Amino acid sequence: MKVKDHLYAVILAGGSGTRFWPLSRENYSKQFLKIAGSRSLLEQTVQRLRGLVAPQRIYIVVAEKDLPNLRLLFPDTGRRKDASPHILVEPEAKNTAPAIGLAAIHLLSEDPDSVMLVLPSDHLVTRASAFRKLVRNAVKELVRGSLLTLGVKPSRPETGYGYIQVGRKNSHGIYPVSRFVEKPDTRAARRYLKARNYFWNSGIFIWRSDVLLNEIGRHLPGLHRHLSLIRNSGGKSNENRTIQQTYQKIKPVSIDYGVMEKSTSVQMIPADIGWTDLGSWPSLEQVIRTDRSGNIKSGNVIDRDSHNSILYGGQRLVATIGLDEMIVVDSPDATLVCPKDRAQDIRQLVHTLKKKGAVEQSVHQTVERPWGSYTVMEEGPGYKVKRIVVQPGKKLSLQFHKHRSEHWVVTSGKARMTCGDVVYDVGPNESAYVPVGVFHRIQNPGKKSLCIIEVQCGPYLGEDDIVRISDDYGRQ
Amino acid sequence: MKVKDHLYAVILAGGSGTRFWPLSRENYSKQFLKIAGSRSLLEQTVQRLRGLVAPQRIYIVVAEKDLPNLRLLFPDTGRRKDASPHILVEPEAKNTAPAIGLAAIHLLSEDPDSVMLVLPSDHLVTRASAFRKLVRNAVKELVRGSLLTLGVKPSRPETGYGYIQVGRKNSHGIYPVSRFVEKPDTRAARRYLKARNYFWNSGIFIWRSDVLLNEIGRHLPGLHRHLSLIRNSGGKSNENRTIQQTYQKIKPVSIDYGVMEKSTSVQMIPADIGWTDLGSWPSLEQVIRTDRSGNIKSGNVIDRDSHNSILYGGQRLVATIGLDEMIVVDSPDATLVCPKDRAQDIRQLVHTLKKKGAVEQSVHQTVERPWGSYTVMEEGPGYKVKRIVVQPGKKLSLQFHKHRSEHWVVTSGKARMTCGDVVYDVGPNESAYVPVGVFHRIQNPGKKSLCIIEVQCGPYLGEDDIVRISDDYGRQ
Repeated sequence: MKVKDHLYAVILAGGSGTRFWPLSRENYSKQFLKIAGSRSLLEQTVQRLRGLVAPQRIYIVVAEKDLPNLRLLFPDTGRRKDASPHILVEPEAKNTAPAIGLAAIHLLSEDPDSVMLVLPSDHLVTRASAFRKLVRNAVKELVRGSLLTLGVKPSRPETGYGYIQVGRKNSHGIYPVSRFVEKPDTRAARRYLKARNYFWNSGIFIWRSDVLLNEIGRHLPGLHRHLSLIRNSGGKSNENRTIQQTYQKIKPVSIDYGVMEKSTSVQMIPADIGWTDLGSWPSLEQVIRTDRSGNIKSGNVIDRDSHNSILYGGQRLVATIGLDEMIVVDSPDATLVCPKDRAQDIRQLVHTLKKKGAVEQSVHQTVERPWGSYTVMEEGPGYKVKRIVVQPGKKLSLQFHKHRSEHWVVTSGKARMTCGDVVYDVGPNESAYVPVGVFHRIQNPGKKSLCIIEVQCGPYLGEDDIVRISDDYGRQ
Repeated sequence: MKVKDHLYAVILAGGSGTRFWPLSRENYSKQFLKIAGSRSLLEQTVQRLRGLVAPQRIYIVVAEKDLPNLRLLFPDTGRRKDASPHILVEPEAKNTAPAIGLAAIHLLSEDPDSVMLVLPSDHLVTRASAFRKLVRNAVKELVRGSLLTLGVKPSRPETGYGYIQVGRKNSHGIYPVSRFVEKPDTRAARRYLKARNYFWNSGIFIWRSDVLLNEIGRHLPGLHRHLSLIRNSGGKSNENRTIQQTYQKIKPVSIDYGVMEKSTSVQMIPADIGWTDLGSWPSLEQVIRTDRSGNIKSGNVIDRDSHNSILYGGQRLVATIGLDEMIVVDSPDATLVCPKDRAQDIRQLVHTLKKKGAVEQSVHQTVERPWGSYTVMEEGPGYKVKRIVVQPGKKLSLQFHKHRSEHWVVTSGKARMTCGDVVYDVGPNESAYVPVGVFHRIQNPGKKSLCIIEVQCGPYLGEDDIVRISDDYGRQ
């Protein structure tokens, strides 16, 4: 049996979107951000597999809340099986062990000899071909029954990563793992840097699906029982309901804490692949070149005399003077100001926002949709103003609202409006009106973008007041 | 002659609006801000004179650019002479000496024995009745031929103020002034604090108009010549043109540098009146009580663990973590982040913005108008979206535009629309359209505020594309 013929990639695309707030949000987590490069971290993760794993052997595990964002990146998923990765949906994110377990039972049903390459979706790997070469070699050396993890040689006393302590390597360059170490303090991190038998835990793993499930059975018997229920419902009519019900009972646990730290079968292979975790705003400095003053600047920022700071603006003006070791991040509806050495507190801040019910914690002002995007410009008593952009050839669902009327002014492009039984075209500097309760649809029949200013009027203006009759994108 | 029967107040309402940016703007300077109390600093200055100087004896000197803001505060000025202060308009601000000189020639034409009480419009005086008592006494003690200035006993080694060194006081509690001292360094300021014969220069002066003009003649002969030209044109048909032309030639100079430092006739009276200059963001701490952590917080600010900081938000969310001695000020279109001890650099920053032509330097997103206000929500290719609020009973000018059409949606209140020859009422969730070139007017005939969302469409959308036919507020 050639192991590489049984290699599958499992990309974990959960994530809470807290540490890169306000750019990341609860419903727009880190893997969707283009903070390092012109493509999102998730897209880069998929691209990195080109030539190593065929698209139809790539599985992305995603929480239901992130599905709309994922569909925007891979619109053909579920339609053209040969060209797009598969998507495995978790009803809700329960950390890495359940996500990996779900993927394992899925792969086992496809291929009893399947080997999983498990990858985080929000890390950066700058040496893609070295990564592919290493994985090919690791798969070749994979010993039946072992859990193989990729370790990165530390280059600084990093306190934000977990570490792996190893024994003596074998003739194939594989180390036995002595223990996993949680994020250390600075003193310990310095010691690990010198010691040379400590590596960073990259979160990239290689193992057989059956071996991993056995290890889960040994160390997380509760999770194993839940996964078995799901496995037994596979292909049956109650499969979806079983997954929904079972996930409610699953306790969140990481694969590191739940399995790796307890297993005696763990091996490590050193990976010199330009790996970075991108765990926080300050970590950007490891991947983006700073200017002469040590700053990373982006967007509409006017600065005087700041040093070693991360200054992330957008369209609004951000003016900074004499900052040192600071983080300033501006987004259309929220601004963050925080010293770099307090970046770990952003997580708590976002929890506070969530408790207060602040909308700035969960969604962006601009929401991407399969047909384009909408941006909430302002919400006031009895009204909401949106900018709607519809891509050429796309259309919104046929829908109606129970509580709101809508006034539209086209500012560029051409709109084909369906309103009740009537269909008509509306051009720039023309307007249209849809009374409450009337079926309607907006379509862009042209070859350039359509931009509409929408003024909603009504006593209730929530996004959930939408009844879809028909939709190009299968939404309800 | 009873001097108090000849007392006039001259309030200097110039100001560049740089040091409190982004709350102050070039066209919205500090005296219009409500940063200390529920009324603007200028209004507080006028209120402070109640019972001391009658409204018809109060003159506000203002630069033309600030006239619209001033008219909002004193809408009856120029109509009911008995109840509102007078306004003297400078074509452009040229610092304090020309403004005071202009007021002096004006007062002399009214009353040859006039005595001027000169007041900055953007300082704070917390002990108003002590202030009035002191002025009454000072006017009584005013020696013919002398320039009297109010001095404030220093309470800290302040480096942001000018100082006055005095000799031995006379039996009436008046000190001869030895010299004026420019803003000192910290060491000198500490020395002045100990020395007891140094006072802060409050910028509040009392003198006869003729005496002041004589002193200008002696120390600023150029300015005196220009003022004489203006004086000679007084009441003639060419008065306005003379003022316009003369002001172009006047060199900006402060009364302190131009006259007070050179004159030998200056006396000082100590003023224990709770005076603060409010010269910068950090000076707010002298007038606003800080919270337990030493912060001044306002608006939509969520903070974790900051100390001794000024955190000024508005409606947008500002999140701060672990700041110390910092200033964060958010406004709808611009955010400032700056350590307190760099607050003096804000001025340079604003100059940089001006050079770059940044609109955020000159005007706010929300612009106050005599009839209400408008807020620019967004400007994009070929369109601009505004929220227009019209106060009950008010109306905009009858106008038309050469380049833009306007779509209106009423979201609350009732609008009476004039469009060409037609007048009709538009209520909530109703819309109206004004094509390019058509006369129109919006009026609020109701008893509650009218709110309209306006979508402008056209190739040019500048505020200057407005031709006014008729206006309740005398604008052209």
